[in-house]
Amino acid sequence: MTVSIGLLGAGRIGKTHAKAVSQLANAKLAAVYDPFEDAAKEIAAQTGARVDGLDAIMNDPAIDAVIIATPTDLHAEQIEQAARAGKAIFCEKPIHLDGDRVRECLKVVEETGAKLMVGFNRRFDPNFAEVKRQIEAGVIGDVEMVQITSRDPSPPPVDYVKRSGGLFKDMMIHDFDMARFLLGEEVVEVNAMGSAIVSEEIGAAGDVDTATATLKTASGKICTITNSRRATYGYDQRVEVHGSKGMVSAENMRTTTVTVANGEGYTAEPLMDFFMERYEAAYRIELTAFVDALTSGSEISPNGFDGLKALELAEAATAEVAKARELANA
Amino acid sequence: MTVSIGLLGAGRIGKTHAKAVSQLANAKLAAVYDPFEDAAKEIAAQTGARVDGLDAIMNDPAIDAVIIATPTDLHAEQIEQAARAGKAIFCEKPIHLDGDRVRECLKVVEETGAKLMVGFNRRFDPNFAEVKRQIEAGVIGDVEMVQITSRDPSPPPVDYVKRSGGLFKDMMIHDFDMARFLLGEEVVEVNAMGSAIVSEEIGAAGDVDTATATLKTASGKICTITNSRRATYGYDQRVEVHGSKGMVSAENMRTTTVTVANGEGYTAEPLMDFFMERYEAAYRIELTAFVDALTSGSEISPNGFDGLKALELAEAATAEVAKARELANA
Amino acid sequence: MTVSIGLLGAGRIGKTHAKAVSQLANAKLAAVYDPFEDAAKEIAAQTGARVDGLDAIMNDPAIDAVIIATPTDLHAEQIEQAARAGKAIFCEKPIHLDGDRVRECLKVVEETGAKLMVGFNRRFDPNFAEVKRQIEAGVIGDVEMVQITSRDPSPPPVDYVKRSGGLFKDMMIHDFDMARFLLGEEVVEVNAMGSAIVSEEIGAAGDVDTATATLKTASGKICTITNSRRATYGYDQRVEVHGSKGMVSAENMRTTTVTVANGEGYTAEPLMDFFMERYEAAYRIELTAFVDALTSGSEISPNGFDGLKALELAEAATAEVAKARELANA
Amino acid sequence: MTVSIGLLGAGRIGKTHAKAVSQLANAKLAAVYDPFEDAAKEIAAQTGARVDGLDAIMNDPAIDAVIIATPTDLHAEQIEQAARAGKAIFCEKPIHLDGDRVRECLKVVEETGAKLMVGFNRRFDPNFAEVKRQIEAGVIGDVEMVQITSRDPSPPPVDYVKRSGGLFKDMMIHDFDMARFLLGEEVVEVNAMGSAIVSEEIGAAGDVDTATATLKTASGKICTITNSRRATYGYDQRVEVHGSKGMVSAENMRTTTVTVANGEGYTAEPLMDFFMERYEAAYRIELTAFVDALTSGSEISPNGFDGLKALELAEAATAEVAKARELANA
Repeated sequence: MTVSIGLLGAGRIGKTHAKAVSQLANAKLAAVYDPFEDAAKEIAAQTGARVDGLDAIMNDPAIDAVIIATPTDLHAEQIEQAARAGKAIFCEKPIHLDGDRVRECLKVVEETGAKLMVGFNRRFDPNFAEVKRQIEAGVIGDVEMVQITSRDPSPPPVDYVKRSGGLFKDMMIHDFDMARFLLGEEVVEVNAMGSAIVSEEIGAAGDVDTATATLKTASGKICTITNSRRATYGYDQRVEVHGSKGMVSAENMRTTTVTVANGEGYTAEPLMDFFMERYEAAYRIELTAFVDALTSGSEISPNGFDGLKALELAEAATAEVAKARELANA
Repeated sequence: MTVSIGLLGAGRIGKTHAKAVSQLANAKLAAVYDPFEDAAKEIAAQTGARVDGLDAIMNDPAIDAVIIATPTDLHAEQIEQAARAGKAIFCEKPIHLDGDRVRECLKVVEETGAKLMVGFNRRFDPNFAEVKRQIEAGVIGDVEMVQITSRDPSPPPVDYVKRSGGLFKDMMIHDFDMARFLLGEEVVEVNAMGSAIVSEEIGAAGDVDTATATLKTASGKICTITNSRRATYGYDQRVEVHGSKGMVSAENMRTTTVTVANGEGYTAEPLMDFFMERYEAAYRIELTAFVDALTSGSEISPNGFDGLKALELAEAATAEVAKARELANA
Repeated sequence: MTVSIGLLGAGRIGKTHAKAVSQLANAKLAAVYDPFEDAAKEIAAQTGARVDGLDAIMNDPAIDAVIIATPTDLHAEQIEQAARAGKAIFCEKPIHLDGDRVRECLKVVEETGAKLMVGFNRRFDPNFAEVKRQIEAGVIGDVEMVQITSRDPSPPPVDYVKRSGGLFKDMMIHDFDMARFLLGEEVVEVNAMGSAIVSEEIGAAGDVDTATATLKTASGKICTITNSRRATYGYDQRVEVHGSKGMVSAENMRTTTVTVANGEGYTAEPLMDFFMERYEAAYRIELTAFVDALTSGSEISPNGFDGLKALELAEAATAEVAKARELANA
Repeated sequence: MTVSIGLLGAGRIGKTHAKAVSQLANAKLAAVYDPFEDAAKEIAAQTGARVDGLDAIMNDPAIDAVIIATPTDLHAEQIEQAARAGKAIFCEKPIHLDGDRVRECLKVVEETGAKLMVGFNRRFDPNFAEVKRQIEAGVIGDVEMVQITSRDPSPPPVDYVKRSGGLFKDMMIHDFDMARFLLGEEVVEVNAMGSAIVSEEIGAAGDVDTATATLKTASGKICTITNSRRATYGYDQRVEVHGSKGMVSAENMRTTTVTVANGEGYTAEPLMDFFMERYEAAYRIELTAFVDALTSGSEISPNGFDGLKALELAEAATAEVAKARELANA
């Protein structure tokens, strides 16, 4: 079986997914839609897909699945439209910045029986996936504590920040999903703290750029997450999982293994600087997993429920930091 | 000038300090006291000090300073007695498990003008001290985030736990001091979370064995601390400090640099397993700093105020975890 | 300009090159030849190239360049045929196992003015290429000493060994080329030593499986190379270059950055196990460099002369080990 | 039993040994001799030993053992005198720069039945000793290849070089001993190469400053040693041992585990810079082993034979490099 796919959104991440699909033997990109037709045409030229309209793709019975790579505020309605049209759906995270809207959308998904995968690409990163495999193989016994570090090289433009839903929903949401993935248990308690110390503009926009959240599961497992919008040494992405029998961790990735030594010391190159380079393999493997799940009929993961839970954690953290700010200002 | 020192308490840590003093050119151990006279005699035999009574040492005008290495509940009154007797004082942490008692004791210290150093030995660990030096040299710019990992190889006996004041006052107190040391600013906000998942006995005793605390300073700097009473791979002690210009970290120490490689992978030996081995240099350098401060007349650090602040953070964390437990049980 | 390429040889390495060409914007695979037509057909199906005969490809004026990925003993004559047919040539190493035959072949290349690149893929490995860049940037000053480690996971079949020309021409030839690449100067003195201690069969076949060579340039730079046909921990490929101002090294590559820690220690996964996985990027970048040199008219490197020099070093090392064996047996 | 020790030579290394003895429970420093009496007095003051004459020490029946830490050219005759006086002997390496003189001296040692330990301190370095333990425990199977790197931070004064016997006898002799220690088998073949590229003065003095030697045992095990008188990044001392089942290696040591990361990369501090700091533990453990062997009556190791074998390898390497130089100049 070859999965015929329609791509909605021909921006940076849409291109990445188009390329991933083009390398799969069991999928082909049939059509691509973007309001900016030139972007759609570029992908069409590279992949042999046709450029088409949104509704045309949704209504084409020959198309099995859609990849939603449009702006965030369109995700929920496009998921609903695709679900009703009987398509399998791969949607970039988040489904929506508002939890209620997500729940509404997932009701449609449930009613229609649509298959929905949410783009938490980091689960497919070979490093983090290997950490998960080691946990599942029992290598570290019962998980007791998870530590996740996630730091961006530099803050995004403040205009982006204003539309982003805030650091917890925009950036830490990946780590909330990673926490659930590695804890293997739902979170029942959330603590959070945040500051705007990297960028005054971000603070003025009401957001934070340096933050931490602590999560606890019903059985008492604890997870700490640290985020910063600044890391001069590259895109810093690490996890460390402690269990009753030991620890498993994934370190950062570099482009080369080269070290220079002199009187100043031993210097290894900075980390990869950009998330699309750092997670290049993850994006490819993610799409492979989506298509494979469709052709094999196996469970989709991470799904809409996973998308919702990560957002709920982000909402709880956002609320706690907002409350602390009010208290401080009172 | 040679500092003449009286040692109160001839247990494990007393012996460590006695040995450190014996290697200093500008100090000598004059007398040692312990209710178990055999322990005192052993140190006396090794160092040439005399065995003597507590009051006799306190009242001996030839003794310049005392090292208090007795059980915790005696620290405060012995500090007061020594302060009134005009001695300089080195006291093992904590001054007392109760903040009010510490404040009372520090009032006496202040009134008498006594010099008091509190035994936060980790400040003198060559690794952590080097991290501090790099921060002070401006290498990482303004500190933004501090991450401290501190894990014991295995839980202490539950009887010890019951008398210990709980994980935050007994174990994490070192990390609270380290946080203040590295943040370079007072903490104004404390979050904490804890579980008893390593040992049911510890949970039954009302304490936790797995915990995290998050601290925030007035300017918005954030520190996360993670603690566990279990680390199968050795005594895990790391810090990582992020600043506006970069990061400085101190990794764990090992006994050797040996690696074995085969089909299973590349294996480095576990970490040092015992805090007295791990912090051997720190204990020695700490005593050197105490004696040097006395002979040079320079500021004592860490002092009683540092002891108090760390305890206050521990009390705040303890209270928060207790409140969460009540809520959960309600 | 698009370079039209004919592929000679559709085996494992031929497929790798076909795939690399298919990803280039400035090249296309026009035709593929292999005496086993099924292998050729498979590549043709994947790339859109036609299956054709050797002479047909050589004589097709629409084909600009050939990739020679046939058995070693055919390389020299196919280079000559292609050179006379006016093709640019990419040839897998070695050109021939016999130095005289190589020199003869290179004379044809010179007379015809053909462009010839020899497949020393490791020069294009991102790690080793970065080491070279650091040297050329003057980071370590004048090169003084080079150390190259190259170990295969396990010995090849003895039948392969018998046809291979021996370890120095088959395996260490890569390192001889790397030595010249990193030394930046011709070698004037060669020492070598070898043993058959991994495999008795290899010893019985007159070859060695564990060997070292030491090289010296006219200005006194020294290079040591160690080779083994056994490395239980994976495919071990490292270089380390010492200069007047410092050292630059390239460590091995792993699939992930995952570490597991427990009472046994800290274990990182073994190395990549297979040269085609380890050097995947190198093969791709190598073909890119070949095609780019053709389209831009820039110098081809490494060229036939480089192929000859590496072989001469291998011949010298082979001779020295043979002489030592005779002496030992005498 | 307490071993009563006389120290001959109160220079830098003499002081190190005096301090090591003073920390042993089963030994005491009875007397110290040095033609520069002030140096002897300094050690005497610190240890309670008496200052005495050479013959007085040799002839004092209360002295059980001597430590010979005098200039190299006095070692052989002092060993002989001590052996005839019935003393156990610890002698700094080398016994003599001339192999014939060493053999003569060892004959006296044999005839008198004296116990002689030669100061190859590196065998006692905790890292290299652990490598040896792993080999003996069978962790890597049969040893196949040993790689030893040994680089000094900077060249010694040329006056020292002139008296030193040349790099192979002065510096690489340590590595020849380490090679024998790790190979566990005698060397039957030696290759060597050397250059003077660090220091023109050293070249003018007829010595080399950059060198490599390759050793082979009867069973075919191979060892490569690289030496340089320059390492801008510190005192570089590593070994790596490959066996039929895996590899065991010892990396360099640093003073701290601190890393700084920024846009330039991740920088760890340079290596320890001085051999007496690097091998501090080794010197202490070495003396402990000497005294323990005397009190327990167990075998002395490394002994005079080990001293001789290392020197013979150094002589062979020196001769080979000299021959190559003659050929080059011819």
